[in-house]
Amino acid sequence: MPRALEGIRVADLSHVLAAPTTSMILADLGAEVIHIEPEQGDDSREFGPFVGGHDKNRSGYFISLNRNKKSIVLNLKAAEGKKILRDLIRVSDVVLENFRPDTMQKLGFGWEDVQKINPRAIYCSICGFGHDTLPQYGSRPAYDMVAQAYSGLMSITGPEGGPPCRVGSSVGDIIAGMQGAIGILAALRYRERSGRGQCVDIAMVDSLFSVLENAVARYVNTGEIAGPLGGAHPSIAPFQGFQGKDGQWVIAAIGNDKLWAQYCKILGREDLVEHPEFKTNPLRCDHRKTMVAILEKEMAKKTAAEWCEIFEKERIPYSPINNLKQICEDAHIEHRQMLVEVDQPVVGKMQISASPFKLSETPGEVYAPAPMLGQHTDEVLRDLLGYSAEQIAKLKTDGVVNTTV
Amino acid sequence: MPRALEGIRVADLSHVLAAPTTSMILADLGAEVIHIEPEQGDDSREFGPFVGGHDKNRSGYFISLNRNKKSIVLNLKAAEGKKILRDLIRVSDVVLENFRPDTMQKLGFGWEDVQKINPRAIYCSICGFGHDTLPQYGSRPAYDMVAQAYSGLMSITGPEGGPPCRVGSSVGDIIAGMQGAIGILAALRYRERSGRGQCVDIAMVDSLFSVLENAVARYVNTGEIAGPLGGAHPSIAPFQGFQGKDGQWVIAAIGNDKLWAQYCKILGREDLVEHPEFKTNPLRCDHRKTMVAILEKEMAKKTAAEWCEIFEKERIPYSPINNLKQICEDAHIEHRQMLVEVDQPVVGKMQISASPFKLSETPGEVYAPAPMLGQHTDEVLRDLLGYSAEQIAKLKTDGVVNTTV
Repeated sequence: MPRALEGIRVADLSHVLAAPTTSMILADLGAEVIHIEPEQGDDSREFGPFVGGHDKNRSGYFISLNRNKKSIVLNLKAAEGKKILRDLIRVSDVVLENFRPDTMQKLGFGWEDVQKINPRAIYCSICGFGHDTLPQYGSRPAYDMVAQAYSGLMSITGPEGGPPCRVGSSVGDIIAGMQGAIGILAALRYRERSGRGQCVDIAMVDSLFSVLENAVARYVNTGEIAGPLGGAHPSIAPFQGFQGKDGQWVIAAIGNDKLWAQYCKILGREDLVEHPEFKTNPLRCDHRKTMVAILEKEMAKKTAAEWCEIFEKERIPYSPINNLKQICEDAHIEHRQMLVEVDQPVVGKMQISASPFKLSETPGEVYAPAPMLGQHTDEVLRDLLGYSAEQIAKLKTDGVVNTTV
Repeated sequence: MPRALEGIRVADLSHVLAAPTTSMILADLGAEVIHIEPEQGDDSREFGPFVGGHDKNRSGYFISLNRNKKSIVLNLKAAEGKKILRDLIRVSDVVLENFRPDTMQKLGFGWEDVQKINPRAIYCSICGFGHDTLPQYGSRPAYDMVAQAYSGLMSITGPEGGPPCRVGSSVGDIIAGMQGAIGILAALRYRERSGRGQCVDIAMVDSLFSVLENAVARYVNTGEIAGPLGGAHPSIAPFQGFQGKDGQWVIAAIGNDKLWAQYCKILGREDLVEHPEFKTNPLRCDHRKTMVAILEKEMAKKTAAEWCEIFEKERIPYSPINNLKQICEDAHIEHRQMLVEVDQPVVGKMQISASPFKLSETPGEVYAPAPMLGQHTDEVLRDLLGYSAEQIAKLKTDGVVNTTV
């Protein structure tokens, strides 16, 4: 099957999560991603869960994020290592990194430098506060949690009345990584017209700030400071999770008065339909607490699965609040092939998350496993950069490059 | 300034949030987005906050999402309305929609139909469970909360042990919208080679499932079912929020033992540095509860702002947990121009969220306000589709199109 980004080569100096998300998206869509790792490998090769023992080629975390990529081990402190990176940038379309802002510059590979090496290269950096930032922010570490806290996202996530909660997945890294992919694809399109590359400067704090949507609109237009609302909808009620008698949760999404009447009947509580405190949505919002206490008692009478079956049959909008086991074993996830098997070197067959890019002609795909550390060093040096076997052997002896450990 | 996506035209049948996010991204990067609205307008024109009165051209929510777009009002139930849409698709690069799966087909504009009208068109649909889905999922409503609940994301968000919480912004819509933009850009690139359009089928549930990262890796490899962790890091401690004496929150991110020693000194608690229960990170994770109780008391002795100043000076990794007022007024957000002023028809000058795509040559920009309902109907019919003034007048009389209300 053809791939959308065939012919695009990425020199990928990324690590852990933000920029690796960018290169995963590009690789899934067909770009050739050459992940350049230091001697000890990308830090995330040490992140669990490990599959069948603990070594640098067994991290389930690394494997899931780095499928479809190649790996070379390159010592960027050695002059010969820098030369190899220059060679690689010369034949690449994209240079991608998520170090602290001054790291690449110190190595001699800042945007100014890369532009001189290859004026057609698109340079994408992802960090906490951006490369173009206030002096005091330039050296701050860019943990996902810092971006979630700083951006305001934590302040609107969590139970009503607090404490602020972190989103359970690292959306500070991941949303920035997705925006990196969008920026690169847009820059590639512009290059078709202009012939020139450019710099894409993604800040994780900006990325999350840009997805706060109505909370920002409310503050700038009315001064209202949004807070967390737990699992409830801000202006529709009941539109929230309830716990069944088995402790599992289900969302009941009662968006209008007709659904309210139906829902009350299902609960055997016709007395609530025309109740003066609950009969319209504004009333239900005003008396949310009283209403929720009543509904919680009723919803505790059946299991979440029983409620789902009833709501499905009666066409009440609902959803189970799936946990990881439930969603990983779910029929929809199976139908959409959102978990796929990969035959991973060292590890053997295992499941990883698939690509959500369901394109009819060129879908995002897992077409290759994640690389072992330095697995493609020889191949890249020889086939792409034209180094001889003798040169490669010498580079290895000199500790400039390395192959699979 | 040139724009990356100049020359790309989008026939945008989107509403509310998911697909409008896609077209916002494309428009910010320079695509010409023609938002096709029904007589009563996109539903989100009725979503608050309203600026200076309540009408269809004053929704702060709509304005923020629809800057840079054009609006035409088109009755798609009328034969003449369908003809206009066909004309428009013929001259567009992208057709975008987020109705329920069967809506466009019933109107005669499903993927099969659009392909016949314009084989170069890229057709992007976004809905809860995708167009290619199990029969029972096809008609389910795709509320953001349903996607958050169904995907597993809610089950890992919220206080430890506590009720599952919704992420405070509608990431079920927004992440799907971002993935729609990536899919479209990849499909545009493939069209350069193949000359053909294709269908991009985004499911909100897939979108969120694909960002669960390590929670999926843990379940499929170890069977562990991740739960919510509040505001704490799963494997580093202390790495979480603390409340200052003013009730405001600050993250202390103590990633190693050296930082632990420094942090204890700052708290005036040198006794904790070598404490047998706290002296290494694994010990601190094991005795998290005891440790956090002690630290909470110490952190309650100064305001969050005082802690931030001290941590900044002593180079302890930290972040304030900003609320919406704090982040909207923040120096970083100002420096990065993440809030910009737009001169909005009817409303006047107001602030909206800016684009996070900081590209050096072709940045994402707010270059035009959001359209009034039907503001560009005449312009599009006349200049783009070649209708005469008489034809347009008749279409208005017949209730097929409409202009600014």
